[in-house]
Amino acid sequence: MFSTPAATERTSAAAWLQAMLDFEAALAAAQAKAGVIPAEVAEEIARRCRAELFDADSIAERAVSSATPVIALVRDLTALVDADAKPHVHRGATTQDVVDTAAMLVVRDVLALVIADLRAAADDCARLAEQHRGTVMIARTLLQQALPTTFGCRCAGWLTSLDEATTALGRVRDERLAVQLGGPAGTLASLGAEGIRVTELLAAELGLAEPVVPWHTDRTRIAELAGALGTAAGVLGKIALDVELHAQTEVGELSEGKAGGSSALPHKRNPAGAVLISAAANRVPGLVATLLSAMPQEYERAAGAWQSEWEPLTELLRLVAAAAAGTRQLLAGLHVHTEQMAANLDLTRGLVMAESAAGPLMNTLGRTDAQDLVSRLCRSAVQEGTTLRAELLADPRVREVLSEAEVVAATEPADYLGSAPAFIDRALAAHAELENR
Amino acid sequence: MFSTPAATERTSAAAWLQAMLDFEAALAAAQAKAGVIPAEVAEEIARRCRAELFDADSIAERAVSSATPVIALVRDLTALVDADAKPHVHRGATTQDVVDTAAMLVVRDVLALVIADLRAAADDCARLAEQHRGTVMIARTLLQQALPTTFGCRCAGWLTSLDEATTALGRVRDERLAVQLGGPAGTLASLGAEGIRVTELLAAELGLAEPVVPWHTDRTRIAELAGALGTAAGVLGKIALDVELHAQTEVGELSEGKAGGSSALPHKRNPAGAVLISAAANRVPGLVATLLSAMPQEYERAAGAWQSEWEPLTELLRLVAAAAAGTRQLLAGLHVHTEQMAANLDLTRGLVMAESAAGPLMNTLGRTDAQDLVSRLCRSAVQEGTTLRAELLADPRVREVLSEAEVVAATEPADYLGSAPAFIDRALAAHAELENR
Amino acid sequence: MFSTPAATERTSAAAWLQAMLDFEAALAAAQAKAGVIPAEVAEEIARRCRAELFDADSIAERAVSSATPVIALVRDLTALVDADAKPHVHRGATTQDVVDTAAMLVVRDVLALVIADLRAAADDCARLAEQHRGTVMIARTLLQQALPTTFGCRCAGWLTSLDEATTALGRVRDERLAVQLGGPAGTLASLGAEGIRVTELLAAELGLAEPVVPWHTDRTRIAELAGALGTAAGVLGKIALDVELHAQTEVGELSEGKAGGSSALPHKRNPAGAVLISAAANRVPGLVATLLSAMPQEYERAAGAWQSEWEPLTELLRLVAAAAAGTRQLLAGLHVHTEQMAANLDLTRGLVMAESAAGPLMNTLGRTDAQDLVSRLCRSAVQEGTTLRAELLADPRVREVLSEAEVVAATEPADYLGSAPAFIDRALAAHAELENR
Amino acid sequence: MFSTPAATERTSAAAWLQAMLDFEAALAAAQAKAGVIPAEVAEEIARRCRAELFDADSIAERAVSSATPVIALVRDLTALVDADAKPHVHRGATTQDVVDTAAMLVVRDVLALVIADLRAAADDCARLAEQHRGTVMIARTLLQQALPTTFGCRCAGWLTSLDEATTALGRVRDERLAVQLGGPAGTLASLGAEGIRVTELLAAELGLAEPVVPWHTDRTRIAELAGALGTAAGVLGKIALDVELHAQTEVGELSEGKAGGSSALPHKRNPAGAVLISAAANRVPGLVATLLSAMPQEYERAAGAWQSEWEPLTELLRLVAAAAAGTRQLLAGLHVHTEQMAANLDLTRGLVMAESAAGPLMNTLGRTDAQDLVSRLCRSAVQEGTTLRAELLADPRVREVLSEAEVVAATEPADYLGSAPAFIDRALAAHAELENR
Repeated sequence: MFSTPAATERTSAAAWLQAMLDFEAALAAAQAKAGVIPAEVAEEIARRCRAELFDADSIAERAVSSATPVIALVRDLTALVDADAKPHVHRGATTQDVVDTAAMLVVRDVLALVIADLRAAADDCARLAEQHRGTVMIARTLLQQALPTTFGCRCAGWLTSLDEATTALGRVRDERLAVQLGGPAGTLASLGAEGIRVTELLAAELGLAEPVVPWHTDRTRIAELAGALGTAAGVLGKIALDVELHAQTEVGELSEGKAGGSSALPHKRNPAGAVLISAAANRVPGLVATLLSAMPQEYERAAGAWQSEWEPLTELLRLVAAAAAGTRQLLAGLHVHTEQMAANLDLTRGLVMAESAAGPLMNTLGRTDAQDLVSRLCRSAVQEGTTLRAELLADPRVREVLSEAEVVAATEPADYLGSAPAFIDRALAAHAELENR
Repeated sequence: MFSTPAATERTSAAAWLQAMLDFEAALAAAQAKAGVIPAEVAEEIARRCRAELFDADSIAERAVSSATPVIALVRDLTALVDADAKPHVHRGATTQDVVDTAAMLVVRDVLALVIADLRAAADDCARLAEQHRGTVMIARTLLQQALPTTFGCRCAGWLTSLDEATTALGRVRDERLAVQLGGPAGTLASLGAEGIRVTELLAAELGLAEPVVPWHTDRTRIAELAGALGTAAGVLGKIALDVELHAQTEVGELSEGKAGGSSALPHKRNPAGAVLISAAANRVPGLVATLLSAMPQEYERAAGAWQSEWEPLTELLRLVAAAAAGTRQLLAGLHVHTEQMAANLDLTRGLVMAESAAGPLMNTLGRTDAQDLVSRLCRSAVQEGTTLRAELLADPRVREVLSEAEVVAATEPADYLGSAPAFIDRALAAHAELENR
Repeated sequence: MFSTPAATERTSAAAWLQAMLDFEAALAAAQAKAGVIPAEVAEEIARRCRAELFDADSIAERAVSSATPVIALVRDLTALVDADAKPHVHRGATTQDVVDTAAMLVVRDVLALVIADLRAAADDCARLAEQHRGTVMIARTLLQQALPTTFGCRCAGWLTSLDEATTALGRVRDERLAVQLGGPAGTLASLGAEGIRVTELLAAELGLAEPVVPWHTDRTRIAELAGALGTAAGVLGKIALDVELHAQTEVGELSEGKAGGSSALPHKRNPAGAVLISAAANRVPGLVATLLSAMPQEYERAAGAWQSEWEPLTELLRLVAAAAAGTRQLLAGLHVHTEQMAANLDLTRGLVMAESAAGPLMNTLGRTDAQDLVSRLCRSAVQEGTTLRAELLADPRVREVLSEAEVVAATEPADYLGSAPAFIDRALAAHAELENR
Repeated sequence: MFSTPAATERTSAAAWLQAMLDFEAALAAAQAKAGVIPAEVAEEIARRCRAELFDADSIAERAVSSATPVIALVRDLTALVDADAKPHVHRGATTQDVVDTAAMLVVRDVLALVIADLRAAADDCARLAEQHRGTVMIARTLLQQALPTTFGCRCAGWLTSLDEATTALGRVRDERLAVQLGGPAGTLASLGAEGIRVTELLAAELGLAEPVVPWHTDRTRIAELAGALGTAAGVLGKIALDVELHAQTEVGELSEGKAGGSSALPHKRNPAGAVLISAAANRVPGLVATLLSAMPQEYERAAGAWQSEWEPLTELLRLVAAAAAGTRQLLAGLHVHTEQMAANLDLTRGLVMAESAAGPLMNTLGRTDAQDLVSRLCRSAVQEGTTLRAELLADPRVREVLSEAEVVAATEPADYLGSAPAFIDRALAAHAELENR
C-alpha cells in the first residue's frame, strides 16, 4: 500500500545488491582503463557481478557482525572470480564507497519513476486546468467558504507546485548523484597516483557525476535529495487533502474514479486513493528529519549516523514513489461534479458575493458605508431566508446607485473571478516551457 | 546562545512588523503605478509604514482572536493614514499576502547573514586546507584509527560541504523568494483586470521574484528553504562534531581559540563554541520536519498548518545563523596541535600502516599471503611491544623482498597519502571558482 | 498566539533565573541542615537568591563563551553575598545540577497550568456529553457520512482521551520530577560523605523527588515528559480538527463562541481558536523528536545534546499550555447547531440507514440477500430522488417481512445508536472517578 | 541489521495476518458467549482463522483499492467458513477494529521480547556495576576529562536508566493494550444491546484491557507506546554511544566481545555492535514524531493519519527490539580494559585532581586563594612536564598546610569518589526491588 511494484523492485534487496555489484564491476573497468589492473580481470569481475549469483539473505545475516553488508559481498565475489582476478576485487575501495555509490544508482532508478509520475500528474493537472477554466466553484479559507474561484484555478495551483517539486528533484538527479570513492580513509592511498583518474573513469562508467572530493562524511547530497523528496511529498499530500475535502459527503464536488466502497454502507465513496497518498505523505517529514539528523558524521566514517541512513532512504523513495503514482492515477480518474460546485456556491444565499457587491457601491457611498450597508443586507438575507441579491434589489439606497442589471452582475460569481483565468494561462505556459526543456 | 544579535534583530517582532509594513507600502506603490490608486495615497501610506509608529505588543494581543496579526495591523495603519488614504490601505490583499511576503523579506535579510558567515567559514577552511596540506594526521573511521591523511584533506572536505550548502542556500535566495499576492481567494478579484500587473510591480518594488501563480497553499518555497537550511545545519554540525572529537583530552589535536574554562577543573578546555553549534544543529531537523508536515494546506488557506510555519521558520533562521556565525568564529580561532597529531599517528605502533606495508609485498607474495604476513607481524608488534616497522625489518620473508629503505618508506605515514594533496587542490579550485561567480 | 500569558511568564528568562536561584538557595539550606555549611550562610544566600537582583541579559550574554548561563550566575550571586557566604555559594554543584533542577521547577509550574486547563476542558466535555446524550448526528469515517451517532458520544470520546492524557501528565508530575545533584562528575566528590544526605534534603526543600542516582545523562525524565506532552497535544489537536471540520460552511454543526470575523467576507465564521490549537499541536511532534534525539549524551555530560534540550522544552511547555487553554475556552463557548446536525443526517436520503434497514430483513432473507436488496433500494432512492425509507415502504419483498412501523423504526437514526448512550455513561463514570482521586 | 529474527517474525505480514485472524476468532467466540451467534459458528470461524490458510500477498494487493487489508481478509475468511458461519464472520466489526486490535496483539508479542532483553541488559549492568565498584576511571564532561569516578558508577547510571525505561514500557504493556471494538461508527449499533458485553468478552478472550470507550480516534495508546519506545531507544543509544567513545583507539577503555575486524586495517576493533544500536536509535525519534503527528484523526475514522501509523509502528518495534537485543549482547560480552582506565587517569599529569587538592587547602587559605594556588601549580605542572602532585609537594605554601601523606591522599583518584559507591548501592537496590515486583 505504501510503495509501487516498480519502486519496491528498484529498492529491493536484490536491487541494492545489484547496485553494489555494478559498483564493483565499474570500479574494475575503470581501473583497467587506468591501467591499474588487467583488462581481462575487469571483464572477469564484471561477468560475476550479477545479483542472481549471490545469496542476499546470507549476506544480510553476515552483515550484522561488521555492521556492513560489503565485507560478506566482497568475500563472496572474490570466491566467485578466477584466481587471477581475486586480488583485484574491490581494490582500493572501502565499504562506504560501495554502499554510497550503490545508493546513488538506486536513487537514480527510483527518481526516474517518481519524476515520470510527477510529470504525468502535472499533465493531468494541466488538462483539468484547461478543461475547468470556466468551472466556477467556491474558494475556501480556514475551511470556510470565501469567494468564487474556478476549479481550473485550483488545478493551476496544483500544477505549479507539481512543476516546482519536479524541477527540484530533477536538479538533484542531474547535479547531485555522484560516485563515492575514497578508500578506507578518503585518500585513495592504495591507488597511489591513480586515485583521481580512477574516480573520473568510474563516474563515466556509471553515468554519475564526479565529486570534487570524496563525500563519505559530506552528506549534502543525501540531505538535498531528502529535502526534494520531502517537498514533493508535501505537494502530493496537499492535492490528496484537497481531494478528500472536496469528496466529503457534504461537499461532494470531487470523487475518485474508483472510490472505495463498503458493503454495509452503500452510500460511501471513500477517497481511498487520496487516503493512501496522505498516509504516505504524513510519514515523509519524519524520515527527512532522520536523514538530516544523520548529517553530523564523525571524522572519516560515522559510527551509527551513516548506517541510519540506509533504510530511511529506501522508505523515502518508496513512499514518494507511491504518492506520485497514486496522484497520477487519482488525477487521471478524477470525477468533477460541476453541478455540485455550482450548488455549493449558493449555500450562503449569496453572502460570498458581499465583497463583490460592496465594490460598485464604494464610489458613491464610500468604502466604509458601502461595507456596512452590505453587511446589514447580509444579515437580513440570513434572518429573512432570502438572498443577498434579493436584499440588494429591494434596498432603496442600493438602487439609487445600481440598476437591477448592475446588482445582478455584482452578485454573479462568474463575474468576480479576477485574475483566475490569467493564472491558469500562466501556469499552463510555465508547464509547457518546462516540458520543452 | 542560540541566535546571533544580528539574526535576532532581523527576526524580531519589530523586524516582522516592519516587513509587513514594507509589504503594505509596496502594495500601495505598485497600485499607484498601475493606476489603481492615486500616487499621493501611496505616498501617504508609505509614510506611515514605519514599525516605530505601531504598538507591536498590542497587535500581538489582538492577533489571537482572529489567528492572525494582520487584521489589527491593517486597522492601526488605516487609523494612522489620512482620510483620503484610508479606503486604499491593504487594498485587494489578504492576511496571507502580508505574512507570506513579509516572511520572504525576513528570510532574505537573515540569509544575507548566513551566507556571509558560511562563506567566511569556507574561506577559513580553505586557508586551513592550504596551510595544513602537509600536516599528517590519522584518519578515523567508526572512531577507530584507520590510515594516515592530512588535516588539510579533512579541511578540504569541510570546505566542499560548506560550499555545497552555500550554493543551495544561494539558489533558494536567488530563485525562490517571491512575493505572495492573491487576495482572499487567490484570484485577486477585487483588483479586477489589474491583478497581475500589480503583482509584477509589487515584486519589482520589493526586489522579490514574481511567482507563476499565488503560492498561498503551494509551500514549495518554504520547504526548499527549510531543506537548504537543514542541509547547512548538518554541514555545520559535522564540523563542530569533528572539533569536539579532536578536542578530547585523549586526542588533543584541536582546541578552540577561546576554549571554555572551569574554575574547579583547570585542565579542561571545553569546546564551548562547538558545543553550541552542535546544540543548534540538533534542533534543526525537527523544525524542518515541522515545516514539511505543514505543506498539505487545505483549499485556499490552511486551518492550522500555515499558522504552524511562523515561529519554526524564525527559529530555523536563528539557529542556522547562530551555527554559521559560531563556525566562522570557531574556524577563525582554531588551534591545530600538529605535534599531537604526529604523536597520535604512532599510537598503534605503526599498525595503521599495515595496508601500506602489504602493498609492496603483494607483487611478490600475492595479495593474500602479503596480507596474512603483515597481519601476523602486526600481532607480534602488539604482543612484543615493538612496532610494525621493527617487525618488518626483522622478518626474513619481508627482507627478501624489501630493502630497509623500502620498509621505512612503506611504514612512513607521510608517504601513504594517495590523492589527499590532489583533493585539497580540487576543493580549493572549486572554492575559488565559486568565489568568482 | 502560541503561548498563554501565564505560561510565558512561568517559562520566561526571569522564571528560569528564579528557578536556578531557588536551586542555589535550597542547596545552601540543605547543606546547612546537613551541617556542611553554617545556617547563617544558607540564610544569607537565600536572601540574595531573588531574580530581581540579577541582570538576566548580562548573564545570557556571558553564557555564550562557556555554553552555560550558570558560571555567570554563580559569579554574580557570589558577588552579592556576604564575604562569609562567598565560599559556600553553589558548593559541590555543577552547571548541570542547576539547570536540570531548575528545569524541573519550571516544568512543575507549567504543568500545574496545563493540567488545570485539561481538567477544565474535560469537565466541559463531560457537560457536553451529558447535554447532548440524545443529539443524534452523523458519524463520519474517511470524511464520508457513515452511520448515526450522537454528539454526546463524540464528546465522550474527547473526554476519555483528555482524561487519559491528563493521567499521563499527572504521573510524570508526581513521579518523575526530581532534583539533579551530581557535581562535576556525578559523584558529589567535593561533598565527601554527605552527598546523599544533601540530595535528600535538597529534594525535600524543593518538593521534588529524590532520584536513585544523579540523572545528568539519564534523560528518561525529559523523554517521558516530552512523550506525555506530545500525547496531550495530539488529543487537543484532534478536538480542534473535529471542531474545524464541523464548522465548515457545508457542515455547519459547530461554531466557536467567538468565531473570527472578516470585514470583506461577512458570512465567514472562522474557527480561529481551533486553528491556533491545531497550529500549536502541529509543532509539538518535531520538538518531542528533538528531545528524544538528544537522549544519547556522552559520558558524564553531553557536548551539544543536553544544551539542545533547553529551548525546545520551553517551547513544548508553552505550546501545550496554549493548546490546553485554547481548548478549554473553545469547549466552554462551543455552539452546537443541533438543527444542522439533524439536517445533515438526511443528506443521503436515508442511505446511512442501509445497515440498520438490512438488519431486520436478514432473519428472513438471509444476510446476503438482505444486503443486496437494500443496496438495490439505495440505488433506486438515489436515481429516483426518493429516500431509502420510501423505497423500503414501496418494495413488496420488504413489506412481506416488515410492517410500516418496522420500516420506519429501521430507518430512524435515533433508533440505531447501539451502545452510544452506554459509552457516554462509561466515559462520565471514569471521569468522575478520576476527579475523585 | 535493524531488527532481530524474533522481532521480524512477530511483526511479519504473517504475524499481522494471524493477529487479525485472532481478532476475528475471538470476536466470534465472544459473540457466542454473549448469545449473539451460535457456539458452533464461533468454533467454525476459529477453525479457519489460521494465517496459513490465507494468501497474504493477494490480500496486500487487494488492500490498495480500499486502503485497508481487512475487506479482502474478511472476504477470504467468509469464503472459507461453512455456509452457516458466513453471515456471522466479522459481525458488527469494522476495519479499524480488526487492525487496531491486531496491532495491540503484535505490540504485546514484541514488547515481551523487548522487555526481556532490557531486563537482561540491566542485569548485566548490575553485574558490571558490582564488579567494577572499585575500578577507578576518569569521568568526562563535554568530552573533556573531568574528575575521577568508577566504571561501576557509570554502569549504575546505565542500569537506572534501563530500569526506568523498562518500567515505562511495562506500564504501557500492562495498562494500555486494549481491544478496539466500535463498529463502523464507534457505536456498535449492529450489536444492539450487546455491544458492551461483547467488548468485555472479547477483551477477556484476547487477554487485553477493555477500554472505557472505543478508541478509534483516541490515539493516546499508540502515542504512549511510541513515547515509551522512544525513551527506551534513547537509553540504549546512550549506552552504545558511551561504548563507542570508550572504544576509541585513543581511549581504549572498552571493547566489544566480538569487535568487527577489517582485513586491510588489522589494528581496528570496530564497535560494530554499538554502531548498529546507535543507527537504530537514531531512527526512532522520527518515527515517534510520525506517530504523534498522526494523532489528530478526523471524526470517527481518519483519512490518512490512521493509515500512516501502521508501518512506522512495525518499524519502531523492530528497531527497539534490535537495539535492546544488541545492547544485551554488547553488555554480556563487554571487555573492560581496567589498565587503560588507570593509564588515562594520569593523562593530565594529575590536573584532574585539582578540585580535590584545593579542598584541604581551603580551610587554611580560604577558598579563592586555595583555588588560585592550585591553578598556578597546575600551570607549572604543564609547563614543567611534572605532575600536580609533584608541584604540590614542592610548594612551600602547600607544605605549610599539608603533609606529604595528605598531599598524596588529596591527589589520589581512588580517594576522591564521593558518593560513587553509594550510588552503585542505590542503583543495585532499586534494580533488585524491580526484579522482585
